[in-house]
Amino acid sequence: MARVELIGLDGDDTLWHSERYFATTQERIRSLLAPWADAETFDEALLATERANLARFGYGVKGFLLSTIETAIELTAGRVPATAIGHIIGWGKDLLDHPVELLDGVADVLAELASSHRLVLVTKGDLFHQETKVASSGLAGLFEAVHIVSEKDPDTYRRVLDAAGVEPAAFVMVGNSLRSDVLPAAEIGARGVHVPYQITWGLEQAELPESLMGRVVQLDRLTQLPGALGRLQ
Amino acid sequence: MARVELIGLDGDDTLWHSERYFATTQERIRSLLAPWADAETFDEALLATERANLARFGYGVKGFLLSTIETAIELTAGRVPATAIGHIIGWGKDLLDHPVELLDGVADVLAELASSHRLVLVTKGDLFHQETKVASSGLAGLFEAVHIVSEKDPDTYRRVLDAAGVEPAAFVMVGNSLRSDVLPAAEIGARGVHVPYQITWGLEQAELPESLMGRVVQLDRLTQLPGALGRLQ
Repeated sequence: MARVELIGLDGDDTLWHSERYFATTQERIRSLLAPWADAETFDEALLATERANLARFGYGVKGFLLSTIETAIELTAGRVPATAIGHIIGWGKDLLDHPVELLDGVADVLAELASSHRLVLVTKGDLFHQETKVASSGLAGLFEAVHIVSEKDPDTYRRVLDAAGVEPAAFVMVGNSLRSDVLPAAEIGARGVHVPYQITWGLEQAELPESLMGRVVQLDRLTQLPGALGRLQ
Repeated sequence: MARVELIGLDGDDTLWHSERYFATTQERIRSLLAPWADAETFDEALLATERANLARFGYGVKGFLLSTIETAIELTAGRVPATAIGHIIGWGKDLLDHPVELLDGVADVLAELASSHRLVLVTKGDLFHQETKVASSGLAGLFEAVHIVSEKDPDTYRRVLDAAGVEPAAFVMVGNSLRSDVLPAAEIGARGVHVPYQITWGLEQAELPESLMGRVVQLDRLTQLPGALGRLQ
């Protein structure tokens, strides 16, 4: 195998916490709607709405909020009070405002990786919110490029590699989502490192096909990445 | 003055219609809320909410929708029915779905400009929605780069020029917004061409300071740009 020259890293739930803030917000909304729908009904309806809206809204907090409001109106047949929708918007603002909290050991391991490899950040979501998170993470200086993208598919990773002038065989993409970080990178001939987060959003769930297993390594924590790179090479 | 080497073009309301679709949507919402607030009260309250939310939501349809819903709840003291909020979300989806309609003569004038100059697109708004609009405009192939940015300030234009390897003196930025397209480009030593659209959103309104007037040309239509470039050089 070729030496890994360029390492791509995902942001949300790979470098910093994200999904757990969404989960807290969703729990608040679930309680708000408890008079009309039980938890399971609400969660299923929200996921279905998010899936239906994905091609219009893309990823990120604002689309989540709009899908949540739409779900609340549907599940209550229009009886949810507007003041409750006002609470949802307020909680959404809290979600946008939460400080960036790095996962354990991330700052040190990234500094170590940056001393031996070129690093790029490949993240998706609301442009504005992602830029704010990258800036306040304190990590921006370690990356030679920051790509905030609308979708993570094979074409996205081809563009990242074109911009860096690197062949797929010399690239490894690292992230918590098999669907967005690992599979599309493996599909174009790169390698993937999967570092699962404690929660996986419904629309990110995926299986690793047997044909790609040889290209993918799974780790418990990002701090194991330097050791794992040796095994990939 | 140096020869213009690189031309930057704004998208919304410079190459294709946008603000008039927002205006139609806002008119529908204004009628919906007429039992609670007159048109002027609604428009003023919405603009104030959008201004307050800008640093969190950024530009684009999703932020507009969330600000509209927030305004509707406030103006009605929570009495707006959830079904009305459902209508707002539906109209917002229409706004995201509207086909891209180029301004008159844009396709021809861009093809002409591309034969003599390097072109870049510099546009802001929701990443996902802007990508969709660029792709369906049929113009993407004329640009050497497409920059979808969260804000158009002097630093943004410096980054665009760094990426292109062009000095400010050889760059002209063309767009319908004095505040976002013309002023920040003129501030970094480039030139600006202002082509006003029939409607200017409240948060884009600005005055041209006398000190920058020598760097800025105003045109009635984008089709006058090739002639105006001669006068800029």
